[in-house]
Amino acid sequence: MHQPKEIISNLEYLRKLFIMPDSPDKFIEFGNDLLEMIHDFFQQKGGIHSAITLPELSHLFDQTAVPASPRLIKDVLGEIKGKIVKHSVKVGSPYYIGHMTSAIPYFMILLEMIIAALNQNQVKIESAKASSFVERELVAWLHRLVFNKGDKYYEKNIQNHRVALGNVVSDGTLANLTALLVAREKAFAPDGDFPGLRMAGMARALRHYGYSKAVILVSKRGHYSITKSANLLGLGEDNVISIAVDSNNRIDIKKLRKKIEELQKKNRRGRTKIVSIIGIAGTTETGSVDNLYEMANIARETDTHFHVDACWGGSAILVDEYRHLFKGIEQADSVTIDAHKLLYCPMSMGVVLFQDEKDLRYIRHSSQYVIRRNSVDTGRFTIEGSRPFSCLKPWASLKIIGKEGYGLLFKQAQKSTDNLKMILDNCGNFETLNNPQLFILIYRFIPGVVKKQLMAWKKDRSKDSERKIRKVNNLINGLNIKLHKALRRDDTSFVSRTTMESTTYRPQKIVVLRAVLINPLTNSQILEEIVATQNRIGLKIWKEFKPVFYRLSDSSLQDPEMIVSAPVSA
Amino acid sequence: MHQPKEIISNLEYLRKLFIMPDSPDKFIEFGNDLLEMIHDFFQQKGGIHSAITLPELSHLFDQTAVPASPRLIKDVLGEIKGKIVKHSVKVGSPYYIGHMTSAIPYFMILLEMIIAALNQNQVKIESAKASSFVERELVAWLHRLVFNKGDKYYEKNIQNHRVALGNVVSDGTLANLTALLVAREKAFAPDGDFPGLRMAGMARALRHYGYSKAVILVSKRGHYSITKSANLLGLGEDNVISIAVDSNNRIDIKKLRKKIEELQKKNRRGRTKIVSIIGIAGTTETGSVDNLYEMANIARETDTHFHVDACWGGSAILVDEYRHLFKGIEQADSVTIDAHKLLYCPMSMGVVLFQDEKDLRYIRHSSQYVIRRNSVDTGRFTIEGSRPFSCLKPWASLKIIGKEGYGLLFKQAQKSTDNLKMILDNCGNFETLNNPQLFILIYRFIPGVVKKQLMAWKKDRSKDSERKIRKVNNLINGLNIKLHKALRRDDTSFVSRTTMESTTYRPQKIVVLRAVLINPLTNSQILEEIVATQNRIGLKIWKEFKPVFYRLSDSSLQDPEMIVSAPVSA
Repeated sequence: MHQPKEIISNLEYLRKLFIMPDSPDKFIEFGNDLLEMIHDFFQQKGGIHSAITLPELSHLFDQTAVPASPRLIKDVLGEIKGKIVKHSVKVGSPYYIGHMTSAIPYFMILLEMIIAALNQNQVKIESAKASSFVERELVAWLHRLVFNKGDKYYEKNIQNHRVALGNVVSDGTLANLTALLVAREKAFAPDGDFPGLRMAGMARALRHYGYSKAVILVSKRGHYSITKSANLLGLGEDNVISIAVDSNNRIDIKKLRKKIEELQKKNRRGRTKIVSIIGIAGTTETGSVDNLYEMANIARETDTHFHVDACWGGSAILVDEYRHLFKGIEQADSVTIDAHKLLYCPMSMGVVLFQDEKDLRYIRHSSQYVIRRNSVDTGRFTIEGSRPFSCLKPWASLKIIGKEGYGLLFKQAQKSTDNLKMILDNCGNFETLNNPQLFILIYRFIPGVVKKQLMAWKKDRSKDSERKIRKVNNLINGLNIKLHKALRRDDTSFVSRTTMESTTYRPQKIVVLRAVLINPLTNSQILEEIVATQNRIGLKIWKEFKPVFYRLSDSSLQDPEMIVSAPVSA
Repeated sequence: MHQPKEIISNLEYLRKLFIMPDSPDKFIEFGNDLLEMIHDFFQQKGGIHSAITLPELSHLFDQTAVPASPRLIKDVLGEIKGKIVKHSVKVGSPYYIGHMTSAIPYFMILLEMIIAALNQNQVKIESAKASSFVERELVAWLHRLVFNKGDKYYEKNIQNHRVALGNVVSDGTLANLTALLVAREKAFAPDGDFPGLRMAGMARALRHYGYSKAVILVSKRGHYSITKSANLLGLGEDNVISIAVDSNNRIDIKKLRKKIEELQKKNRRGRTKIVSIIGIAGTTETGSVDNLYEMANIARETDTHFHVDACWGGSAILVDEYRHLFKGIEQADSVTIDAHKLLYCPMSMGVVLFQDEKDLRYIRHSSQYVIRRNSVDTGRFTIEGSRPFSCLKPWASLKIIGKEGYGLLFKQAQKSTDNLKMILDNCGNFETLNNPQLFILIYRFIPGVVKKQLMAWKKDRSKDSERKIRKVNNLINGLNIKLHKALRRDDTSFVSRTTMESTTYRPQKIVVLRAVLINPLTNSQILEEIVATQNRIGLKIWKEFKPVFYRLSDSSLQDPEMIVSAPVSA
């Protein structure tokens, strides 16, 4: 480790740190070094991660007390380079196709510089003048995309500070939380002497309205932020009711109707209030979009809040050819969209939109010193207090890339998804497990011979075959877990892994690999390489599993789960 | 308006946006332009705000639909310069002393560049390798500052992924919300067949434990995020019980004890659960620190969660000479601190710390595809999902500035606060209204003659004098509102305004000006200028109010509030 040069603290030195230098040479010198460092990092060949292990890494960050003396900026930047940048994840690599984190356009870095330099606090107009207007303009754009209410509506409301078409929030979880908070307040609104759930709390609200509990309905593919919200809001996670999905990973509309009928029958334990029905427009695991049109009808009949979690897919509405997927979304009461997903912004920013521009009044609040009741402050409507000027990023990006540009990016993402599916299907040793709608493909490694055998058993339909299918699936689950771990060690590419009730083999849980294909730099050659690597390593691991499989196929021998357990836990 | 050059969308052009240029010239060219633009903005003489009115500004941002075609980066940057930067609030100006938003050190802009370029998502290790460790290290530093548990504790826990010493969150509101969520879960924990409030919801939890309601106790100076949290958590805003403050704006310990005794008596309506007692370490309005030591004792006796909202003041614990103010904080169960306040980071980042490293397990969650149960992912413990690598800013800043450097910055802030108080007291036409503890001073403009008269009436103590004091205070309230509006028009400086039950005149509400003195570039000459301006404009406005005052002093005439109303609403 290099010995950092000691510097002497004095106020004059510190004050200079707070001034943008008169001649910005010093700043530009640092800026250039930084850009080169970032450039080098992205250009490095080799792995997605550095080779360092987590225990080794933990020793680089084990100083247990705040540093006492100041250090030179360049020394600390050097430390950041050697200890942090070097050991960061190359989420922008075209070989990193495992999560929703992609490469971002480089102009985003320029925008972050502006945001930091201006350091506006969006909570109120006294600390965010133009930036409050930018925020409203962006929210109106997205609101129009979703709800498309016509010129007059937007001309009237785009900069109308008495209402709010939506909020800019720090991420999708807060966006969903805000939507469900509003849904909850609407469900238990003030009524005569009752001041509303907001003032009186959950227990009194249920008593006042004569309910024994309040629930939220969402498909099994619902994001975990929904259960988090149910906990936060005092509804309880047990009161998030999961509805099964159809073979395309979309909510099963019949089962949804049936569950609602069931809930509406008063049972011994009392009546149930349905606070919200949630549609998903791009599930996190499979990219599927629920039948929003039917859900909107059901929500209307049920007289409940219809929320659409479009955190992943919502931005695709920008492009006409995707619009049909979202049919019915314009009837939602609230919709959430993340800018750091398909708008290609850096971490992190979400938006929650409300069809009725008056809905956010249910949670409006004020305080004397910061957001006065009759002010124009955006902070009146938000859960968060202090907020950065993050909305500049999607605002500028929608100008620089434009609808047309996003259309091309999504087309490319679609092409990558189709390519990967084709390459996997052609290889013969993979099984693709969804019809990808929005750039997410799930699949698993399964040697051709096993695939054939499973298909034969499936046709056969005997109890014995079903039992065998389950056992072989357990084996292949173990194989895919082991493969995924080996791929991490190989580190030339990255896909994620999850376990889910696959629509093909349900109710059995299947371990799947998951690819998210939105990086425009990912091309078919790269995809070929990734699949070749997975196939090569998969076949190598398969050798260990093969004997077990053949024994299973012979339907004889000892309990195969015992044998499987070893590779699974490895 | 300049006509933006049309560009043709094509994928090759778009792809190039996603690549850090091979020779970073283009990027650096933009970067330089940007730096000059920012530099110019800060160097501009004149106002805190541009002269544009809000209605005029709204017309600059009234495009109601997403732009269709792409535009050149430089054109959009030009638009940002002309429409946004120009009309931003100069929160970094040494004349801007009205809110907690100060100048920031310029290296913060470099750090934001790194954060955006790396684009790590802190939710999980697969998208945030080194940065997860940086986060834990920073949290351990702050935890040690507050709870000071000794080397062994921190060596064991600093990088122990089984527990969490705290969370990095997007702002102070989310920090307080996280603390109170944990407090709520602890108060209604799983118990036999009862699965805990988290799973079962608020109503069942109260029933199971035999309570009729759950409350939070905080002084009248509590931040509005506390009532927001009570709403979110299903407790209800009415169940935030406000305790009066003493003459130093600190919670009245006797009244707190009395209220608790009252709550613990079972009344006709059933038993009350005290979910948390909240101490404030730096109230937003006056900077005062509650008697945390006594509150810790009370919380222990009451067997309730003791939370300390140190969002404003917490960072001052870095410096030994402030430590005594926080005596008792080490006995808190949870403490919140904002990095964008006294750590001088840009918007926005908060931290919530838990004395017991196991407390965050109450809200731990997992999901298959992103944060597996046995993973090392920080996202297991957070309310938010996707989170940026914000912790790099305070982490690096604590190295570059160091404890010593922050000590000097706080000393300077203290000096500015003392200076402003002295200048105001010497002027004769102001009344300072608090003994500032952490760099916040509240005061009002009140001509010497009025001040003298109020003092005379105060001594006298007759009913008639009390009535007159109230009436004159109403008059002076109107005067200060008008003064504050005139100061905004003058725009050479900025202080904020609030209305509060002043300890001097309670229960009457007093309009006060509020100065937050943390910008190290604010010097005594600037403070002299600011006060001179306020005095000059105040005296001018006073002319309108003078006749009313003299009529009031004569204690004759018509209802003075009628007369006052005109200037107040002006």
